[in-house]
Amino acid sequence: MIKYSAIGAVGYVCGEMLRMMVAHPETELVSLMDSYGVDQYVWEHFPALKGFYNQKIEDLTEENVLKAAKESDVVFIQVPSGDVAKWAHIVLGEGKKIIDIGADIRFRDAAVWEKWYGGVHPDPELTENAVYCIPEVMRDLAKGKSVIANPGCYPTATTLALYPILKQDAVVENTIIIDAKSGITGAGRRPTMNKLLTEAENNFNAYALGGGHRHTPEIEQNIAYITGKDLHKPETWQFVNFQPHLLPQTRGIEVTVYATLSRDYTNAELFELYSDFYKDEPFVRVYPASVPVQTKWTYGTNFCMMTPTYDARTHRLIVSSVIDNIGKGAAGQAIQNLNLICGLPETTGLLFPAMYP
Amino acid sequence: MIKYSAIGAVGYVCGEMLRMMVAHPETELVSLMDSYGVDQYVWEHFPALKGFYNQKIEDLTEENVLKAAKESDVVFIQVPSGDVAKWAHIVLGEGKKIIDIGADIRFRDAAVWEKWYGGVHPDPELTENAVYCIPEVMRDLAKGKSVIANPGCYPTATTLALYPILKQDAVVENTIIIDAKSGITGAGRRPTMNKLLTEAENNFNAYALGGGHRHTPEIEQNIAYITGKDLHKPETWQFVNFQPHLLPQTRGIEVTVYATLSRDYTNAELFELYSDFYKDEPFVRVYPASVPVQTKWTYGTNFCMMTPTYDARTHRLIVSSVIDNIGKGAAGQAIQNLNLICGLPETTGLLFPAMYP
Amino acid sequence: MIKYSAIGAVGYVCGEMLRMMVAHPETELVSLMDSYGVDQYVWEHFPALKGFYNQKIEDLTEENVLKAAKESDVVFIQVPSGDVAKWAHIVLGEGKKIIDIGADIRFRDAAVWEKWYGGVHPDPELTENAVYCIPEVMRDLAKGKSVIANPGCYPTATTLALYPILKQDAVVENTIIIDAKSGITGAGRRPTMNKLLTEAENNFNAYALGGGHRHTPEIEQNIAYITGKDLHKPETWQFVNFQPHLLPQTRGIEVTVYATLSRDYTNAELFELYSDFYKDEPFVRVYPASVPVQTKWTYGTNFCMMTPTYDARTHRLIVSSVIDNIGKGAAGQAIQNLNLICGLPETTGLLFPAMYP
Amino acid sequence: MIKYSAIGAVGYVCGEMLRMMVAHPETELVSLMDSYGVDQYVWEHFPALKGFYNQKIEDLTEENVLKAAKESDVVFIQVPSGDVAKWAHIVLGEGKKIIDIGADIRFRDAAVWEKWYGGVHPDPELTENAVYCIPEVMRDLAKGKSVIANPGCYPTATTLALYPILKQDAVVENTIIIDAKSGITGAGRRPTMNKLLTEAENNFNAYALGGGHRHTPEIEQNIAYITGKDLHKPETWQFVNFQPHLLPQTRGIEVTVYATLSRDYTNAELFELYSDFYKDEPFVRVYPASVPVQTKWTYGTNFCMMTPTYDARTHRLIVSSVIDNIGKGAAGQAIQNLNLICGLPETTGLLFPAMYP
Repeated sequence: MIKYSAIGAVGYVCGEMLRMMVAHPETELVSLMDSYGVDQYVWEHFPALKGFYNQKIEDLTEENVLKAAKESDVVFIQVPSGDVAKWAHIVLGEGKKIIDIGADIRFRDAAVWEKWYGGVHPDPELTENAVYCIPEVMRDLAKGKSVIANPGCYPTATTLALYPILKQDAVVENTIIIDAKSGITGAGRRPTMNKLLTEAENNFNAYALGGGHRHTPEIEQNIAYITGKDLHKPETWQFVNFQPHLLPQTRGIEVTVYATLSRDYTNAELFELYSDFYKDEPFVRVYPASVPVQTKWTYGTNFCMMTPTYDARTHRLIVSSVIDNIGKGAAGQAIQNLNLICGLPETTGLLFPAMYP
Repeated sequence: MIKYSAIGAVGYVCGEMLRMMVAHPETELVSLMDSYGVDQYVWEHFPALKGFYNQKIEDLTEENVLKAAKESDVVFIQVPSGDVAKWAHIVLGEGKKIIDIGADIRFRDAAVWEKWYGGVHPDPELTENAVYCIPEVMRDLAKGKSVIANPGCYPTATTLALYPILKQDAVVENTIIIDAKSGITGAGRRPTMNKLLTEAENNFNAYALGGGHRHTPEIEQNIAYITGKDLHKPETWQFVNFQPHLLPQTRGIEVTVYATLSRDYTNAELFELYSDFYKDEPFVRVYPASVPVQTKWTYGTNFCMMTPTYDARTHRLIVSSVIDNIGKGAAGQAIQNLNLICGLPETTGLLFPAMYP
Repeated sequence: MIKYSAIGAVGYVCGEMLRMMVAHPETELVSLMDSYGVDQYVWEHFPALKGFYNQKIEDLTEENVLKAAKESDVVFIQVPSGDVAKWAHIVLGEGKKIIDIGADIRFRDAAVWEKWYGGVHPDPELTENAVYCIPEVMRDLAKGKSVIANPGCYPTATTLALYPILKQDAVVENTIIIDAKSGITGAGRRPTMNKLLTEAENNFNAYALGGGHRHTPEIEQNIAYITGKDLHKPETWQFVNFQPHLLPQTRGIEVTVYATLSRDYTNAELFELYSDFYKDEPFVRVYPASVPVQTKWTYGTNFCMMTPTYDARTHRLIVSSVIDNIGKGAAGQAIQNLNLICGLPETTGLLFPAMYP
Repeated sequence: MIKYSAIGAVGYVCGEMLRMMVAHPETELVSLMDSYGVDQYVWEHFPALKGFYNQKIEDLTEENVLKAAKESDVVFIQVPSGDVAKWAHIVLGEGKKIIDIGADIRFRDAAVWEKWYGGVHPDPELTENAVYCIPEVMRDLAKGKSVIANPGCYPTATTLALYPILKQDAVVENTIIIDAKSGITGAGRRPTMNKLLTEAENNFNAYALGGGHRHTPEIEQNIAYITGKDLHKPETWQFVNFQPHLLPQTRGIEVTVYATLSRDYTNAELFELYSDFYKDEPFVRVYPASVPVQTKWTYGTNFCMMTPTYDARTHRLIVSSVIDNIGKGAAGQAIQNLNLICGLPETTGLLFPAMYP
């Protein structure tokens, strides 16, 4: 039985992780810590969890983290940008593992973080030693490791869509465009006017328009990793356009990935290539060109589903890839990573279908 | 007072046209014809119109069309692909004008229609003589004409987003990608499972994936027109990727248009260029990069709003452009075209703000 | 041309009033005042109004209200409970009219306000002299008056549903139950977690459960008015159950009103009774039992639509009545009241159909 | 391992049952039969089930039902009204159990079915011998039985809301009014215009207005059962008003139950009464008056949650009760009944929290 705690307890990702963990046969919750909602039951924040967890939220203090670290095997951390190092070291000092849901330690080169997130990186050594892990792409790096950087939602859907074709060495450099759309849980749970149902329903818009979204370099680093570039030299990476939009729905990410290819494919060839590439991956499903994937098929799950196609008129690959942004895009993948670093089958507790409809 | 009739009465576009016409001071409805809903009041199909129109739907017969043509100045036509010629000639035979909402007569070269819509074009001469008209782009061609091809929804939002930059001759050939998203009214009113609220809410997906959507050549023809290519030689046009998606909302189209530019711009320069370009257009609104447009701002209107931006890292223009697909994308533009060909100010009856929220 | 100003500028009701006023041919906006959003353009709060109003929001000070009162004929006021008297007296001091959107002056007996809203009523004389006006019920009281209390949304839909049957003297005392459902705009625009799309979509719940909603005594006072009871003696009024719920939609109120009747009706008799009763009311539409009204039919309008029915098994009247909560339920009715007290036809600027779909 | 089959395979209830059964450790699917979708994989109808079930839908023939009955322990049946007897007898002839999701065998008195559903009851003996079972109310009747009538969705939420207070003998006769609201899955999966997202979103309306919904007598029979009336003499039952409405959401039922009580309660007393009454029921959760239950808390689950309150001004009980209409309202309760008649703990496979948000 793997004992786990979580720093950051009242956001959607922690709520989803706890929901999924109900079905996980090998884990046990120790402690939930946050600086918000202290001394309230976790089910006061997630009414659906009443009867499943009876923990109160503990104050996020060094003392409580130390205590939780002593009693846990793994600690999930989700804190504001720049804050992870402090808590990570307490956990690591006790010889325990961390899975960081945030972006602090996702980059091999701290300068990339500094450029896109701003400020001085609080702990370049920690980020260098962390293992960024989309299991389908980097699981070999992560096994047995202690510090996991859980990937961002958009980079997960995008990287899995590009992985097979990048391995064919068939993508023309600097031609990748990612048009991404996310449900509103991706913008967090803090009340703001633009997320009100009254303002957001029947509404759709781009944000971070024209470049600048922080998931851009994370995607570029993944492409660099797959294509064998030096992760410490971002100037050698491919530049991509990553353009996100906000969907009038709760969950779900779709990315439509465009790339000019150096050779032609038929849709059937692409389907075969992708299907074969992912044939042993329990969480990836590939569909033929006639069946565009739908976000609803992944609702509440750890699946990534995709439809790869090719437009011969323009020599462009077009892949539509979908995940649940707080499932495979956050909590699900965090549990998959927990399984991975704790020696459990990756699928433990995660093989269940989407709610539909 | 301009008298009008409509062939095709029970779909969303006719309903929206009738709604908008309530506020139009210079028009009067003569007759509504359809082969569906015959002898029912139009408000049985659009309950909100009760008390505003008391017409019954007449059967779509040659006799009724002839009678309507005699009594009307303009006839709006929305019939299945390939069917427009028959009705058009009856109306034209009476010396009256038609505005065709469908796609039959949108292409200068009937071969383009045949390639993308299938079958033999029923009347190549009619399509040659029709004037395809987005007023902001081609109003000079349309004034006083009798046969108007009302543009498609996606091509309207896309063409207006590209028009200013194409006129700068700054777009690198064959680099245009259009990632488009539409509310479900775009798929019509006929009940199908994928449009049920239960299946469509919290859902998002691509369709016509990998190329093949029929609005592709319409967009390409518009680009060819703007850049001075021969509309009868599609092999000389630019090829674009046009990839549509279905949004879980009733109305609204957003297109995100990507194009590699041959010179660099700042966001401020682009904002100035676009603002200046459209400064006399009452239905186009341009916003700076910090304000991405939202579909809800155009809800129920004839406006097109857009935010042009530039990503210097990748040398790509990224424009987000929004319309109401059954407003400026169909019924609103049809009324604008009616105003245009009847010598009224284009804004007559159309200057009202979106319902918000 | 009637000049108007508004105190309280950034909420949904003011936004809707401004939207509707675009189509009103006899009014002109003077000034918008609020303590929030000062010095911002009103279209920064309502992007859809850009190009239609260019006023900036002025600070809500005595000086600005005095200035606005001098230049206006009517001032709309929407301020927090208990605050209206101060501003009202400035306007009245200038000999101008007020229409209060809030609840401060809705009760003849200030003690009722004190019981349900809490605290000491700031100006019992003002509330005694104000005319509470649902025009279809009390228009004769309001003509030419200077102080109008604009009714609440729920009481409007409910009172109109009960008015014809109460006038028949056919309702058994204390048997009225009102099960009400409102779109989320009814809860205002201030961001709170329960109104986020992520929490509110696919969700429905009662609130103020078991009694206690402040619209209860307003409904009871209206029933007392219609049945000829003394408005100053609430202990003689009928008690009703008014139970509101929150709908996962932006606009729209439906109330299902139950009442035991002292004589039996057929559905056809009720339809005839109601239709006849409201036959001269341009904003009330009555439907037969086979056609239950839908909130969407009133979207963005000043209409109230209703279907009266009778269950002979239980001897109960069941009426379903719908309005747009910020249309007929607030802004629309406020404009109707403005028309009424300024001597214009009540329908001026308000006869337009709902947007559908 | 309990082997089960299902007659009626492509509707939402079967899809939900299969989804829930993935987590059920003691069951195994044998066969799915329907006259629609024959020879298609079940995941072509429920894409989210791909990888979890590989059965094809078999034609609904006597031969296939006989074969399925031989290989199964339990057969779920969901067929149009009046059709269940034929299939039931084949299954019972093989000595196997049936759980009927429809309404054919829910009434002790076939005359009640005939009055509300129309036509001649095809098998009065079968309905007499069937056990209608909401486990929390009638589990003792069902243990070990072979023919279960699975309750309707509305009657489940309503009966559980009334059960504790009816057992107190505190409800004044013929004062019960049930105002019910359902998500659109309650209207089935067949495409109709009123269920399109475009027509149903931002929309709310009553249906079966004024009485006549078929769940009315089912609720009355349950009240009769609880209060000890003769189920074969419907003329002795209490009459209730049951008024349903359609919500713009996929899942979820809320019923607000009103009843005049013969003695007064405080909210606290009611909370204690209800909490105590249901303290051993794993699927019922009771909340205090300050916490109105929300449909979203039950999304995808077998839970019923309720908030009982009392309005002393009107002497009326007001209970808000929520379930997932295709969870506890159909598929969940069917599995609970399967557990019950097969000797498994009722909670087997059903103890998981709602997806939230």
